[in-house]
Amino acid sequence: MKEGQLGEIYHQYIDCLNRQDWAGLGTFVHDDAIHNGQRFGLAGYITMLERDFDEIPDLRFAAEFVLESPPFIGCRLKFDCTPKGRFLGLSVNGRRVRFSENVFYRFHDGKIAEVWSVIDKQAIEAQLRD
Amino acid sequence: MKEGQLGEIYHQYIDCLNRQDWAGLGTFVHDDAIHNGQRFGLAGYITMLERDFDEIPDLRFAAEFVLESPPFIGCRLKFDCTPKGRFLGLSVNGRRVRFSENVFYRFHDGKIAEVWSVIDKQAIEAQLRD
Repeated sequence: MKEGQLGEIYHQYIDCLNRQDWAGLGTFVHDDAIHNGQRFGLAGYITMLERDFDEIPDLRFAAEFVLESPPFIGCRLKFDCTPKGRFLGLSVNGRRVRFSENVFYRFHDGKIAEVWSVIDKQAIEAQLRD
Repeated sequence: MKEGQLGEIYHQYIDCLNRQDWAGLGTFVHDDAIHNGQRFGLAGYITMLERDFDEIPDLRFAAEFVLESPPFIGCRLKFDCTPKGRFLGLSVNGRRVRFSENVFYRFHDGKIAEVWSVIDKQAIEAQLRD
């Protein structure tokens, strides 16, 4: 795979998420994808994302920076959104919150095979205390 | 900087942390380093680490995998330790907890200039509920 190719695929994946193009997600995510240790597969991955967008109607994925180190991609994602009710066990209830996610992906055959994601819950807790 | 060189420096940095060699940390961390948006500088960085080791006497940094994408390094760190009292606002009180940290570093002149770190607080919360 050429230098920059994985990064290009990754940016297309982010666009796919923001379009909520679940029919197209199989272009980017393996049938047996693992997410934070759980073997979600593509179907479970879509279920997770549909729930995310249901809980956070204005959800939008934005990459602050992307690291390309084949077969890995690393990304600092930024969110600025208003979860309707509870989110990560916190009562957000329609408040606007801004937070980051540090996430790593292992690619296989040009598709996401495994994801390790950590969301900055402490940042959200701090905003809810304000 | 040659391929692999930043990764090599990073592994030496991790060894330096595990030795608690604060006198040597300036080899790896810039005088004006920024950590999660705070301009800690080298002195503040050492203060943070001393506090970490005081709160978690058996703290040990272990890299699960490292991404090298100059000037960035990304790392999935794994911890298996027993915080004495409160940790991230949680009453751990000497229980053994295992958790990960997804962290990005921007290097400048071969030293860490900025850090974006997110610890998997949800994983710790889940273990405390068990």
